[in-house]
Parts: sequence; structure tokens; C-alpha cells
Amino acid sequence: MAHPVAASRWLVMPIAAVSMFAACSLAVASTPATFPDANASDPATLGWMVGSPPPADRTVRFEDVSYFQFPAMRWSVSNFRQLMPTINVSRGLAAPVPLASALRKDIDTLTFTPLGAKTSMTWDQSLAATYTDGIVVMHRGKVVYERYFGVLKPEGQHAAMSVTKSVVGTLGAMLVAEGQIDANRSVADYVPELAASAFGSATVRQVLDMTTALRYSEDYADPNAEVWAHAKAGSPLPKPKDYTGPRSYYEFLQTVQLQGEHGSAFAYKTVNTDVLGWVIARVTGRNVAQLLSERIWSRLGVEQDAYFTVDSIGTPFAGGGLNTGLRDLARFGEMLRNDGRFNGQQIVPKAVVDDIRRGGDKQAFAKAGYDLLKGWSYRSMWWVTNKAGEAFMARGVHGQRIYVNPAAQMVIVRYASHPVASNAANDPVTLPAFDALAQHLSRLP
Amino acid sequence: MAHPVAASRWLVMPIAAVSMFAACSLAVASTPATFPDANASDPATLGWMVGSPPPADRTVRFEDVSYFQFPAMRWSVSNFRQLMPTINVSRGLAAPVPLASALRKDIDTLTFTPLGAKTSMTWDQSLAATYTDGIVVMHRGKVVYERYFGVLKPEGQHAAMSVTKSVVGTLGAMLVAEGQIDANRSVADYVPELAASAFGSATVRQVLDMTTALRYSEDYADPNAEVWAHAKAGSPLPKPKDYTGPRSYYEFLQTVQLQGEHGSAFAYKTVNTDVLGWVIARVTGRNVAQLLSERIWSRLGVEQDAYFTVDSIGTPFAGGGLNTGLRDLARFGEMLRNDGRFNGQQIVPKAVVDDIRRGGDKQAFAKAGYDLLKGWSYRSMWWVTNKAGEAFMARGVHGQRIYVNPAAQMVIVRYASHPVASNAANDPVTLPAFDALAQHLSRLP
Repeated sequence: MAHPVAASRWLVMPIAAVSMFAACSLAVASTPATFPDANASDPATLGWMVGSPPPADRTVRFEDVSYFQFPAMRWSVSNFRQLMPTINVSRGLAAPVPLASALRKDIDTLTFTPLGAKTSMTWDQSLAATYTDGIVVMHRGKVVYERYFGVLKPEGQHAAMSVTKSVVGTLGAMLVAEGQIDANRSVADYVPELAASAFGSATVRQVLDMTTALRYSEDYADPNAEVWAHAKAGSPLPKPKDYTGPRSYYEFLQTVQLQGEHGSAFAYKTVNTDVLGWVIARVTGRNVAQLLSERIWSRLGVEQDAYFTVDSIGTPFAGGGLNTGLRDLARFGEMLRNDGRFNGQQIVPKAVVDDIRRGGDKQAFAKAGYDLLKGWSYRSMWWVTNKAGEAFMARGVHGQRIYVNPAAQMVIVRYASHPVASNAANDPVTLPAFDALAQHLSRLP
Repeated sequence: MAHPVAASRWLVMPIAAVSMFAACSLAVASTPATFPDANASDPATLGWMVGSPPPADRTVRFEDVSYFQFPAMRWSVSNFRQLMPTINVSRGLAAPVPLASALRKDIDTLTFTPLGAKTSMTWDQSLAATYTDGIVVMHRGKVVYERYFGVLKPEGQHAAMSVTKSVVGTLGAMLVAEGQIDANRSVADYVPELAASAFGSATVRQVLDMTTALRYSEDYADPNAEVWAHAKAGSPLPKPKDYTGPRSYYEFLQTVQLQGEHGSAFAYKTVNTDVLGWVIARVTGRNVAQLLSERIWSRLGVEQDAYFTVDSIGTPFAGGGLNTGLRDLARFGEMLRNDGRFNGQQIVPKAVVDDIRRGGDKQAFAKAGYDLLKGWSYRSMWWVTNKAGEAFMARGVHGQRIYVNPAAQMVIVRYASHPVASNAANDPVTLPAFDALAQHLSRLP
């Protein structure tokens, strides 16, 4: 069936689908001139969901998917819990451990040149250019920069999108390091229901590094792309009466078929993380929300509970459903910068962080053709720069980031609501901005 | 249209409807022998929502309303956030203020005689008899008793059901005390959209004390009862294509018609609290979730965020949608016992607490015919005993309670999942148990 490719289609896909898009930088896209800029699309200024009731043209509803149309999406990413069912990631009941602060005033005026641009930009300007909702920079263990825009507040939560994958990948790598999961064993050894799917012949390591070979298209322009079936299966909304497809993430994953040979090329596909979530649940008896609480969130001294969106049977969306406070995401990044140690505790084994920093198979990664990420690799669901300092990154659609740069003793976490899902749209600003800040901070006495 | 009265109908009504049932004690109902007891229906033992995926017969789904069938309901009341969209009641980011503890071992063996019974029961036995999920008793400012059952944990949240009304009523009474709302003015003065409804001729005080005269039946056996239309309007799920009714709580409230004369009789109807929530939102520019966070939750030193369920346009369900941690509900009750002062701050004006303690119109209350609550009254959405000590109570279906007994310097908060919604089913145990404990603690040196 022929189907016209509508650009706006990108903007109305269900969250289960859109979250899958993470950091595809196959082409350098620029923001179409038709999108209002960050100020003009500020969700607080526009008054989304303000009033009792809010005006009809400022009401965000889950059911008609308008919630993910730009600029309403700029409100939604800070309010997913208000749109759909979620499962809590408890921080426990203890007092948060305060983050040390040493705010710097010299960051906003830092300049850099965006990729492909002829003129420079200041750090301050980069925030609007990337539709930043909130950003925290930590240097040498202290918060040196922290700003919020639109409707995100320090005491709010924002969608991490595919940054979720790196958090779940960390959990998976912990279980591998502890010997609870043998990464060289088949996925089907842990989840027999997946034996007949493509995952039946894949190892856990191939899933962790996304070198599985799957007949799974994330081409939203194609109405027959598997991504749409995945989104339908994972939607918590009731299915239409004539619907006969899978009714949960788990049911969908069993339908994914092999295409090619596992282990040869990096292919970024969200379903890998959902499979990892399933393996984790089977091995530990806890879903990823419960395990994240138990192993990490309750030990980081965070200020807020986090949460995952869930499907209709309560399965957390491991591939993209995490929402957190920004300062808590900074704690998570800072813990990794400190070799897994934070708050006086070893939270993630040092061996896990070392392994991520070393990176994955560069040749496999190169085959995926990310023009902006040459020389990078992918390991345990982290994007690894393989540059001096072994910096690594978590990347989610619309601009979500954790950037850990051990050499610069720096962590940047950013929540954003860029109108274009693909990070190819913001990387030309983001990558040099982050690099410039790392260099600046590294030079400090 | 004739419709057979099915007892099970009680158990499958949507939460928006079921929550409306609060403390109707028109008749003393006993638990039908067909319900398994507390141990046999323990949701942890039964393994609801355990497994990846959970077994089909242990899966709780929002869409098919099985979530509120007993005993699945015993899982659901501790997990509403996992079933439907919610709005957060932020505690802020500061450290919780610890609750002092002085646990007593003499409470479990305390005995009392249930109303209408011939033999006595111990306090410990009363917990199973009332299908208690969690209970905290504070005496002279310290936790003297704290227990959890089933799937409720100290770090979890449980549905407060119509205890919500008393929390929202407290907010309303605060605004009255501060002069932001004139309780003698018409509701329509604040919400003109309600002018043509029954609320157009009611004062805010009549709404606060539920002496409005409304054509609004909460008779679930009647398929034409307005309660069903209310539930449909407030459901966050997409409406059927042929649905032409109201699509939000606010739209529904405008359809409620006058039946009788305002001010003469107490008539417990959930829509009054929804109207109060609307008045509060209009006056303050904040919905009840936001205002509760700002005025109370962020000042109580609570351990956890609370949350409200919402309708499809994000309106918190003021009549019954609050979910909290049990220990935090204890803090709220203790604050009221201390004349609104807690944590070194005056959080609720003393005048508000004094006014609630004095109670409402006893004659108006008597007309409602609550056999078990003779001599009581209703004030600002609290049930007032009008007994020595001016004890007052918040009451929600299936056994939810806040019981503040100033004379005994005691606060009891209880979350429960009794198979029968009406509190008439548990009051014969609850009322004498709470009284016995008050007497016991009062006698302590």
C-alpha cells in the first residue's frame, strides 16, 4: 500500500514508537524553518494545560496523539505521567544527599562553532538552539551550571527517551559482571519464549551491543514498518475490537524475525533493549523499574522517584520509558564518572564502567554509517566516543543526553524538546558545544 | 430499562465511580461469606502482577475494569499509578523530617467487642477483619504502631479514596479562612459555567458541608444513576465513537440538576468535592494537586510525593483520586491534631481546625440516617464525631481512614482493601477498635 510521506508523521507517532528513535545521525538534518524557535514555542508561555479547564487549543490529550505534536510535545515530555500509566522507581525514604554546588558565570559566554556553520555561537545561545528544557553540568564533583526552561523544574521529571537504554544497559552489564547473566549465552537460554524469534540465535552480548540482525524497520514513513506494530503492542490504551496483533511488549518481541547475521554490524533498534529488559526480569525476578530502584536509585541519594511508562500489563518500556529529575540524572552520570562509586558506596562495579569506556566493536559501528560519530562505538547500550578520555554518552530523541567525560572530570545531563526527533538535528550544535565546555573546564587550575 | 441487580456490579465499577462511595453507613452490612478472608486474598501471596509476563489470571488491566474486582483490587489500590494517568503532588526536594518512633507492644493484644457481636476481638485480629493494607498510629507525636500487609510498603502509595475529600476540604477551608473564598457566596460567583446547574444556587459552604440538594444518584444498581455518567466523563480512556456525553469532570458537573432545597439536609455526594476542586482551581490558578503540594505537602516534611488520578484533560479527581504514602498521611493527620502546626510551621490555620472540630449541622446530618454515626456531623468534608475530644475522621471506601482524636492525643491512619466498598461493612469493627485504642492510650501516664 502506497502511503505519502508526511513530515508531520514524525510528530504524531505514539510515544512507544517515537522513543525508539534515539541518536540516529545518518544525515545532518537542520531544523525546518517552519518550526517556531525555543522562545516562541515555550510551553509555559504558550500556556499548555493551564486553566480550569485549559482552552481547547491548549489541551494535551493522550488519546488523540496530539500530545506529541510540536509544540505541545514540549509540555508532554515533562508530564508523561499525566498522560499515561507509569511505574515508580522508588528512591526509598531516606534523605537525599545534597549535590555540592560551585556555579560558574563564565560558561554562558563560552563560544564554539557549530558543525557546518561559519559563525560561532555562545553556550547560552546553544540552549535555545537545542530547545533545552534543563541542563546541569558537573565538574570535579560539583554542579557548576544549572538552568531550566519552559515547564521543567528542578522538582519535576522529564522523559529520558532513549537515554533509558543506557540506564537499562548499565543494569544488564552489572548482572553480567556479577555472573548472574552470561553474556555469551543465547537470549533464549534466559527467555525460552524468544527461541523462535531472531533473538533465539543471538547472544546477550549482541543484544547489549546492538549487533543483532533483525527484520525490524524504524522507518516511520513506511506504514508497514515493524515500528508501528511495536508501538501498538506497547500502547497501554485499549486495543480496537478488530485488533489481532500482539498486546504487550513481550508478545511483540516474539514476532521479530532474523534478517542477516548477528554480530557483524551495529544496528540501532529499540527492541534490543526491550529484550534485555525481559532477560533482566527473568534473571532477577524484578522488572527494570524495580531493579533500578533497588540497585541504583535508592543508593544514589537522589531527590525524586523516577518512573517508567508501562504497557497494558505493567511492563516498563525498557527501550525508552524512563522519566527522571534532571539533578538525579546528573547523580547517575557522576556516579559513572567516579568508576561507579558515589555517596561512599560502590553502586556499579568499576569493571562495568571500564568496559563501557573501552567501547564496543568499531568496525561493526562504522558499518552503520553515522557521519557525525566517526570512530565511535556502542557498548552495553552506551555511545562511546573512543576519544582521549574515553568519554561516553547516552542519547535520546529530541536532544536528551548524558555526557560523561572522565578526562575533563565533567558530566553534562540535558533534557530537551527539539522539534526534530533525530539527534542529527541537534548534534551539529551539541557535539562542539559539549567539547568546548570540556576543554574549557579542563584548562581550569 | 430493567436491569438485574448484580452484587458483583459493585466490584467492577470504574474507579471514578467507586471512589465516590465513601462512608455510607446506612445499613450495617456484613462481609458475605463468599469473599476469601484477608490471608486468602493477600495480593502478595496470590502473586498479582508478578512474573514476566504475569500469568493471564494474575494480570491486572485497566481497560477491562477487572482491576477493581476483588481480590485483584487488593493489588490495584496500591498501584493506581500503574493503571492510569496521574498528576504528581510534589514534596519538593528537601530532606524528609523523620517521624519520631516509640513502638508499643501492648496494642496487638488490646481487646474490644465489635458492634453487634457477642465475642470480643483483639486489635491484631481487627487488622485482618478489615483487610488492612497498612496502619500507623501516632500518640503524643510519636509512631506507636506501624504495620503493612499484602503489597503495600512504607515506600509505596495507596489510594485514599474518599479520604481525598477531607484533604481537598481542608484546602477549601484554608482559602475560606484566608478570605480568598467567601463561603457564603454562590458557587457560580466563582465558576460561572456552573450557573445553570444545581450548584448555581448553592453556596460554597453548602458544597463544603454537602448540604446541597442534587439530582445525583450514587445507586450503582441503577444503570441510569448519574454516578455512571460521572464515571464515564471522568475516565481518562478514549470515549467510544458514538459517545456524546460530557468528556471531563468539569463538563459533567455542569449537567447536575437541583432536586429539593439546598441547606436542609446532609447528602453525601462526591460531585460536591469535584465542584470545590473547580472553585479552588479558579480562585488560586492551581489545581488541587498543585495547591496541595504548594500549601501542605511541601511543608509537612513528607517522605514521598503523592499523586492524584486525572481525567482526560488533566483534572485531578478531587472527589477521590488522591494516593499517598501511609506515613505521610500520618503526618497530615498529626499536623491537624496539632492545630495545623507541624515541623515548626503553621501549615493550616488553627481557625480551620477549630471549625472542623466543632462540626457541622447535626440536624442536617441526622436526616441522612447513618445508624452507626448517630450524633455525628459533617464539616468542610470531614466526618465529625461531636464527642468528647471533638474527634474527626476522613473516610474512604474499602476502609480508608484518618482518625484524629485530640483528647487522646492520637492519630490513626489506615489503608485497606475490604471487599465491600461501603464503610458500613467495616465500621462495626473499626469504630470500637479505634475507640478502644484511644481509651487505652489516654490512660497511659
